[in-house]
Amino acid sequence: MTDNNCIFCKIAAGEIPSATLFEDEKFRVILDVGPAAKGHMLILPKDHYADICEMPEDLVGEAFKLAKKMAEKQQRVLGCDGINVLQNNHEAAGQTVFHFHIHLIPRFKKDKINIGWKPGELSEADRDELLTSFQES
Amino acid sequence: MTDNNCIFCKIAAGEIPSATLFEDEKFRVILDVGPAAKGHMLILPKDHYADICEMPEDLVGEAFKLAKKMAEKQQRVLGCDGINVLQNNHEAAGQTVFHFHIHLIPRFKKDKINIGWKPGELSEADRDELLTSFQES
Repeated sequence: MTDNNCIFCKIAAGEIPSATLFEDEKFRVILDVGPAAKGHMLILPKDHYADICEMPEDLVGEAFKLAKKMAEKQQRVLGCDGINVLQNNHEAAGQTVFHFHIHLIPRFKKDKINIGWKPGELSEADRDELLTSFQES
Repeated sequence: MTDNNCIFCKIAAGEIPSATLFEDEKFRVILDVGPAAKGHMLILPKDHYADICEMPEDLVGEAFKLAKKMAEKQQRVLGCDGINVLQNNHEAAGQTVFHFHIHLIPRFKKDKINIGWKPGELSEADRDELLTSFQES
């Protein structure tokens, strides 16, 4: 199912033109129009799912298998030094279009992209609390 | 196959203890000891693959299907506002342990984690060059 108000549904369906690198029945892979780096791609399912939790398990698997293939192409074609595979869920995580998508970001040594964090600590109290909470879930 | 010099192989095999949230024949899910946020998890395959390109396609699919299940648990147990699913390949992309792993980072409104970038532009020249390069690959 697609959503009439979703721009990624329209792009995935080909109703809005895009720089398409790959297309099949289920997915379209496009160049991001606001790239973090040259060759930054997005994997879009043609059906509308807001996030990874909404999306059927098998389609999630297929989306990331496609991401692997496209990452191999990025490495070969762009000669990049690394790749981030990133999928953001909800505004708090930086998602800006609420149609599931995977970012494939080519990385180069000494580029200015900062995808990281200051590592915190896993205290014993947190660890025990989390182990219990997840066991019970 | 495992790698005798790889700490994530030893953790995945249970030779080094970890805060394990899930385990089956192929994967172990642990709490990150240097978390970006409380409840930050890592999905580790038990076999050793340095990155997504080295890893067999089907196992990549299974790893991210497991990531989806664990993301659903994170949402339910932690009540987080969002989740980043992040898989870094090579040092230039921020990978620090060279054994494939997926980060699941719970996000909260107004947290201090910065996973993003300043959007660039996709010029017509870049677009045409990339479309041609990828078509030929």
